[in-house]
Amino acid sequence: MQLFYQPDLSESHCWLTEDESRHCIKVLRKREGEVIAVTDGNGFFYDCMITKANALKCELEIQAKRAEPKKSFRIHLAIAPTKNPDRLEWLIEKVTELGVDEITLIDCDHSERSFLKTERLLKVAISAMKQSQKATLPVINGLSNFSSILDNTADQKFIAYVDHSNPQHLLHEVIKEKSYLICIGPEGDFSKEELESAMNKGFVKVSLGDSRLRTETAGMAACCLLNAMQVSSR
Amino acid sequence: MQLFYQPDLSESHCWLTEDESRHCIKVLRKREGEVIAVTDGNGFFYDCMITKANALKCELEIQAKRAEPKKSFRIHLAIAPTKNPDRLEWLIEKVTELGVDEITLIDCDHSERSFLKTERLLKVAISAMKQSQKATLPVINGLSNFSSILDNTADQKFIAYVDHSNPQHLLHEVIKEKSYLICIGPEGDFSKEELESAMNKGFVKVSLGDSRLRTETAGMAACCLLNAMQVSSR
Repeated sequence: MQLFYQPDLSESHCWLTEDESRHCIKVLRKREGEVIAVTDGNGFFYDCMITKANALKCELEIQAKRAEPKKSFRIHLAIAPTKNPDRLEWLIEKVTELGVDEITLIDCDHSERSFLKTERLLKVAISAMKQSQKATLPVINGLSNFSSILDNTADQKFIAYVDHSNPQHLLHEVIKEKSYLICIGPEGDFSKEELESAMNKGFVKVSLGDSRLRTETAGMAACCLLNAMQVSSR
Repeated sequence: MQLFYQPDLSESHCWLTEDESRHCIKVLRKREGEVIAVTDGNGFFYDCMITKANALKCELEIQAKRAEPKKSFRIHLAIAPTKNPDRLEWLIEKVTELGVDEITLIDCDHSERSFLKTERLLKVAISAMKQSQKATLPVINGLSNFSSILDNTADQKFIAYVDHSNPQHLLHEVIKEKSYLICIGPEGDFSKEELESAMNKGFVKVSLGDSRLRTETAGMAACCLLNAMQVSSR
């Protein structure tokens, strides 16, 4: 099922953006009277009938609205952007598919990138949301200083750190159905000062396993594990 | 630490391939007498002294050899290749980083690709192995018919299947320290006949969570979870 995205969907004005209209009418050849699925990226799915099959501005009429099932947990990923922009886009796609609620890009002591445009990342997230048939677009916060996330009020705050003293695996620290913030550092990891200031603010140092992972792989693994941990056993 | 790869490393002939020699001598400007780390991709790391800093054929002398710590489990991923070759290469990189021992590309009823060259995939795996400082290169088997893996002798055999009857999550089926085979189907999933024939051969149908995942994301999630499940709790 093809899912379309229109963040600004209300009964008074109801149409697809130019990109989505083109895709709907030109590529998929949808016609007047056909019903399509649309999400507002804000937790709702809509069944909409095409009232004007215009490839520049496809007009719609809402026929039904239903809420995406509510989740009992929340994942906020704070991650240093990779040097290579492709890797960051891959990360955004994959964590959106796996399930993430908020992404904050953090500027760290060992960061290799300190400038970033989030528009492209938002496009990637929209596309991944549609592909994976979700109705909630993750919030993407542009580059902020690492210290700005320290006072976050998530129930559980984790900092992934590659450490010879072998911290506990994330899997053994997670309490189900909480709000989580997990921080992933740049290739050179967090500095000792960053680690210390996070731990002073109640962050728990965790490992993601024995393998040395790239930043984007660590971000994906964290989202994969946090989601999997919510599943109840039989 | 930069890790080099030379599969054919013995005391009698000991040098880097042309690519690796160029990287070592031209790019990293290593000189005669310096010691570099080399892996044979077969479970061993070597400390080698450069005896001839030749950018076409860098000659080495083995100074020490040590085995990678043995794992108590084995992961074999059988997966339908994605239509887009980039996505398949990305998968190979990520599962090599996360830890996988064998990858078999499977031709399924709903497969969109039935021809595949594995040379490029091997290069990606070598690069990911070096990057993640591992000494074992996963075995990559070229495209084989789905039925050819059914008689595999792994301790636990899983087939991921998107199902409304909600099969058990992989996390709850895994017994620690075993050999695993996990099968991931193409975008259109396995056919009912494929699922049935697998279950007749002792495969357990599992879910990877509520999200609709792309093939390569599912492969990555499976390897992430199987690895994480091995970690002992405190």
